[in-house]
Amino acid sequence: MAETTSPLKIDACFSPYLYPVYADSESIVVIIDVLRATSAICTAFHYGAAKMIPVATVEEARALQATGMLAGAERDAIKVEGFDFGNSPYDYMGDHVKDQTIAITTTNGTQALEAAKNAYKVVVGAFTNISALCNWLVAEKRPVLLLCSGWKNRFNLEDSMFAGAVTQELINRNPSYKMGDACLALQYLYQQAQTDPYKFLSRASHKERMARLGLKKDIRFCLQHDQTTVIPVLVNGALVKLDMKK
Amino acid sequence: MAETTSPLKIDACFSPYLYPVYADSESIVVIIDVLRATSAICTAFHYGAAKMIPVATVEEARALQATGMLAGAERDAIKVEGFDFGNSPYDYMGDHVKDQTIAITTTNGTQALEAAKNAYKVVVGAFTNISALCNWLVAEKRPVLLLCSGWKNRFNLEDSMFAGAVTQELINRNPSYKMGDACLALQYLYQQAQTDPYKFLSRASHKERMARLGLKKDIRFCLQHDQTTVIPVLVNGALVKLDMKK
Repeated sequence: MAETTSPLKIDACFSPYLYPVYADSESIVVIIDVLRATSAICTAFHYGAAKMIPVATVEEARALQATGMLAGAERDAIKVEGFDFGNSPYDYMGDHVKDQTIAITTTNGTQALEAAKNAYKVVVGAFTNISALCNWLVAEKRPVLLLCSGWKNRFNLEDSMFAGAVTQELINRNPSYKMGDACLALQYLYQQAQTDPYKFLSRASHKERMARLGLKKDIRFCLQHDQTTVIPVLVNGALVKLDMKK
Repeated sequence: MAETTSPLKIDACFSPYLYPVYADSESIVVIIDVLRATSAICTAFHYGAAKMIPVATVEEARALQATGMLAGAERDAIKVEGFDFGNSPYDYMGDHVKDQTIAITTTNGTQALEAAKNAYKVVVGAFTNISALCNWLVAEKRPVLLLCSGWKNRFNLEDSMFAGAVTQELINRNPSYKMGDACLALQYLYQQAQTDPYKFLSRASHKERMARLGLKKDIRFCLQHDQTTVIPVLVNGALVKLDMKK
């Protein structure tokens, strides 16, 4: 499809439930679930995973696992029993993911992927791939919709903070983007967050939940920029590594 | 109904479309459409309106007008032809509204009222009644859900800014409220906005739209705190003035 001629717009949607209101046929949709699904997905591709199949339910993930596929499943921040992975990035570090196809279901991130699957293009974003992602988005010259997975369809602070970071990075690279109201708000939010994102999230509901579960190390990892240059992209219902040479 | 015993929660919902995700049986819902529906509704009651009947469609408003009732209708920031009022607060200032029942339909605010109509209690908030509203909310000792009308179900900057102001005012009066992630974000947003809310909104999509239509005077009015102490409340599908003595 040709590049769009309309002004380049950046907007943000705070819940997969709200996605139908924002859906259009032009925008690249960035799926955001920084604590931890999209960070884990980027990590898996960085370690050489061939393909990840996001599914909405634990049952679907189990059915794929039964065919011999590796499978990850998380609900309420905990790895579901019987699966190879949860959604900790640390689960996906190492040779065991190399060249593998992995089914994955999570509380929020895979729901956002499902909601947006018919968009013009769907990619996965996290602090761990933010610079590569923003460089690519700017080069694409297309409107961008930042789809925050939130928590069970509610707004959450970590995904919106990351959407603010992407907004800021895109504006830095191309000041002619036109921001929707959500991105205007997120830009202010990120200005507050950026000096110490970990501290900024101190009262966020999901960070509290993860800290109770002993997952502070995961949070620290997920807030580190540029651990990888891979950009996962959804093609025919499966995530693969975006081929940057195309 | 007795006061709730669960911790007092404040949360915010950025779109009527998203309301089902936030709905519960405990919370007082504050309907927010500061530019301009909820500001206009507060103004009408301040000038002695007896009752306002929010309806979702222009046709319903026209049908009520045909019965002899006064009626207001706005779409895309413009008064609909043939109606007594649009949604400018200035339309509702004066003796012509005293003791009247007024049907009203607007692009966003009346949609939020419709979405939340089955909540525990539904009240109308605007900068024009913010102190009275917050004093009453704190005295009620109930969880609060701030329902931003947004713009055609999308997030908007002015309603979220106001929701941030209410969050701040409630926390100032009772620091034990537990904020949802949306309110945490809004508190930061309002800290940025409060020194000059008019300037803060300078790039907001709806303010641009209103400025093009010559409505800067309306915006200035809607951003002024405490023009009234009335709190409109939804009772059996109609807004009436809350009886503070009860």
